[in-house]
Amino acid sequence: MTFRARHLLGIEQLHPIEIATVLDLADSYVDLSRGAVKHSDRLAGLTQINMFFENSTRTQASFELAGKRLGADVMNMAMQASSIKKGETLIDTALTLNAMHPDLLVVRHPHSGAVDLLAQKVTCAVLNAGDGRHEHPTQALLDALTIRRAKGRLHRLNIAICGDIAHSRVARSNILLLGKMENRVRLVGPPTLIPSGAADWGVEVYDDMAKGLEGCDVVMMLRLQKERMDGGFIPSEREYYHRYGLDAEKLAHAKEDAIVMHPGPMNRGVEIDGTIADDINRSVIQEQVEMGVAVRMAAMDLLAQNLREERSNG
Amino acid sequence: MTFRARHLLGIEQLHPIEIATVLDLADSYVDLSRGAVKHSDRLAGLTQINMFFENSTRTQASFELAGKRLGADVMNMAMQASSIKKGETLIDTALTLNAMHPDLLVVRHPHSGAVDLLAQKVTCAVLNAGDGRHEHPTQALLDALTIRRAKGRLHRLNIAICGDIAHSRVARSNILLLGKMENRVRLVGPPTLIPSGAADWGVEVYDDMAKGLEGCDVVMMLRLQKERMDGGFIPSEREYYHRYGLDAEKLAHAKEDAIVMHPGPMNRGVEIDGTIADDINRSVIQEQVEMGVAVRMAAMDLLAQNLREERSNG
Amino acid sequence: MTFRARHLLGIEQLHPIEIATVLDLADSYVDLSRGAVKHSDRLAGLTQINMFFENSTRTQASFELAGKRLGADVMNMAMQASSIKKGETLIDTALTLNAMHPDLLVVRHPHSGAVDLLAQKVTCAVLNAGDGRHEHPTQALLDALTIRRAKGRLHRLNIAICGDIAHSRVARSNILLLGKMENRVRLVGPPTLIPSGAADWGVEVYDDMAKGLEGCDVVMMLRLQKERMDGGFIPSEREYYHRYGLDAEKLAHAKEDAIVMHPGPMNRGVEIDGTIADDINRSVIQEQVEMGVAVRMAAMDLLAQNLREERSNG
Repeated sequence: MTFRARHLLGIEQLHPIEIATVLDLADSYVDLSRGAVKHSDRLAGLTQINMFFENSTRTQASFELAGKRLGADVMNMAMQASSIKKGETLIDTALTLNAMHPDLLVVRHPHSGAVDLLAQKVTCAVLNAGDGRHEHPTQALLDALTIRRAKGRLHRLNIAICGDIAHSRVARSNILLLGKMENRVRLVGPPTLIPSGAADWGVEVYDDMAKGLEGCDVVMMLRLQKERMDGGFIPSEREYYHRYGLDAEKLAHAKEDAIVMHPGPMNRGVEIDGTIADDINRSVIQEQVEMGVAVRMAAMDLLAQNLREERSNG
Repeated sequence: MTFRARHLLGIEQLHPIEIATVLDLADSYVDLSRGAVKHSDRLAGLTQINMFFENSTRTQASFELAGKRLGADVMNMAMQASSIKKGETLIDTALTLNAMHPDLLVVRHPHSGAVDLLAQKVTCAVLNAGDGRHEHPTQALLDALTIRRAKGRLHRLNIAICGDIAHSRVARSNILLLGKMENRVRLVGPPTLIPSGAADWGVEVYDDMAKGLEGCDVVMMLRLQKERMDGGFIPSEREYYHRYGLDAEKLAHAKEDAIVMHPGPMNRGVEIDGTIADDINRSVIQEQVEMGVAVRMAAMDLLAQNLREERSNG
Repeated sequence: MTFRARHLLGIEQLHPIEIATVLDLADSYVDLSRGAVKHSDRLAGLTQINMFFENSTRTQASFELAGKRLGADVMNMAMQASSIKKGETLIDTALTLNAMHPDLLVVRHPHSGAVDLLAQKVTCAVLNAGDGRHEHPTQALLDALTIRRAKGRLHRLNIAICGDIAHSRVARSNILLLGKMENRVRLVGPPTLIPSGAADWGVEVYDDMAKGLEGCDVVMMLRLQKERMDGGFIPSEREYYHRYGLDAEKLAHAKEDAIVMHPGPMNRGVEIDGTIADDINRSVIQEQVEMGVAVRMAAMDLLAQNLREERSNG
């Protein structure tokens, strides 16, 4: 078997073969979602619960569509308005949902590690949809699929991850995944937005976009997450755009066929120029969204297979 | 083919034959929804996304039920709590959803024209569920179906639309539809709530209920939309009810078999007397709600047929 | 026929045989939800609408899953953000939804009696998901099923309901159900939280936990509902825990094999010690949640059967 994971908590726990297995299956779900009948019964009879402790239009929508297109019974929990307010703990909430026998539990939580903790308490498969600054594995998988389809391979590429690395679980999961697949990863951004330990991650660090993008195959921009900058230095948007916003001039330093990525939602004119974002010859930002649904379908399908097998054996 | 539209953005773009086609199909969906099994698979394998930038219990519920009863995978987006807050534009949000391959996108937006703009950017069929003061085509279609079923025809009727015309996209879509079907439309209300250009719309304008309702077949009341009256004159509810609220005395000026309509939600005792609203011999207000689900099923079914044909041809 | 009810408004209206019928069917739905394919088509073609005028994560989720697992088209209405704000009355909202032809309407409302009133106005089956301080029948039914499965019977048991009885519709429905099934019910709590009329309910009243729990088979703890204590005496949590919180010492007064219940969400360290709540030899709190889905599946299935029969008869 090529995908053994019980949960999808992070890229850290995945073997390169498991990553490739998700991406291969996701390719087939891209075809399904582009077809006339974008529905299968792979997850029919199973229950998927989405527990989002942070709002996220696009990620929740992507997981919801993924589950519905595979025929699962899907339920969204609005956790802000929930029992949490009545004094219940995260674990009690998780145990309560677990008692309703979900098969797949998709969780986003503002605290790093909360999803791992929760996974230890439940009997279903847990998918991390983003926990604090820790991991966001399906984002890294969808980015990987986008790159693989655009570049024809997912190894020996030069990939620059640019901007607000410090607050980004997206960056962290991508660094892990791209490293496992033997790519060269560079982090480019102002020193205040690069984590202090980054030098130990096997990446190169730049604070100059021209140098950082030199010869790159992939330029991955991140959203400037002002809402997470509690107390620290907040750059002016104008100055940030001037030094780190991706425009045609800076992009010219990358390879001629370099692709431009962004996990969304974008701040146009802050971390990226709108013209670049909309340039269908360079930008694969819409493809990333499309791959997101496919990758989540694949991950849920594989986890459900393992769950079925585990249950029938035990 | 008798329904060629790619989107349902407004009544303005529809040919009378297209209107009749929607209503004919809707009649059959009334039967389905009244039956023991209120579910078909007409939209099975398709994805419907409801994007409501304004709250609307009844309209969103009506579209949601319509899609679910036709077997679509339906997803609601809570746009207030969404990426919009993170600085994303309407167009970026639309492109993001479009990349998830919906087939039907139902949109309500506070700005006139926003839905048209959005329709130009996406590859799916768009249904306008109300945009600013512009159009609310499914409301006009459900009103038309209600009238046709109550009166046995949808032409050569005298129809009074009464009250807050100025703030009403419902009025605007109804005026367009009823005009296309060759009815005589009158607008009745205080001059401050009648748009200045109304005289050019091919309608008669009255500021007196008795004269305006004289000989009418249909009396359509509108909700007094105080929440949209920014800065302008706000009538006292008591005075408004006295002069423009529909009660038995004012209704006596209409034909003996005139029907009473209201798009809801009603302000009882403001624009309509509760007794009239509940009089099952005169009021068709509940029928309007019922027809709403049927008309939306019909519109989505027809748009999906066109989409399938377009895709298989190209 | 052993279940004749048209609606499920309260335990008060149910015959003991009807209660047993719900529980027997629920047992089979426990098996379904534990199985590999937790989905049937019993409610296929039917429409279920959940109208929650009060937030409730777990109850709404339980009803939603119950309906989806039985194949119904399920729609949640967010009533806070609804037409209610535009001045519409509860009855108008109910009539509007009724016009959309739901088969099952699940309603939670902050006012006692609101659900009964609503049931008189609609043509579908209504399930009370909690109304004010009045009833919460599915909670009592799931508690009964939990007890019956743990104790092997649902009669001649000594059951202590402890804590904030005054604000609890859960207590009220449980007292009614357990009384009908011929159990001995005791209420244990501070006199300020015991309703003044309790002495007439055929129960024993204690204000001392040691005496109240003496020889009990079942210890049912209630949540201290501070949010409902408007103006009255609010005990300090510390003092409350000391006198009425269930800990090992107090539980030792009950029978050795007594089970511990709580409807959730729990305030650990207020009405119950966390260690007791998590003790799988004593606590059946997770089982209660599991039984909740099963009981709601059973109740909706039975009501839908009656509705179908009524409709086919005329």
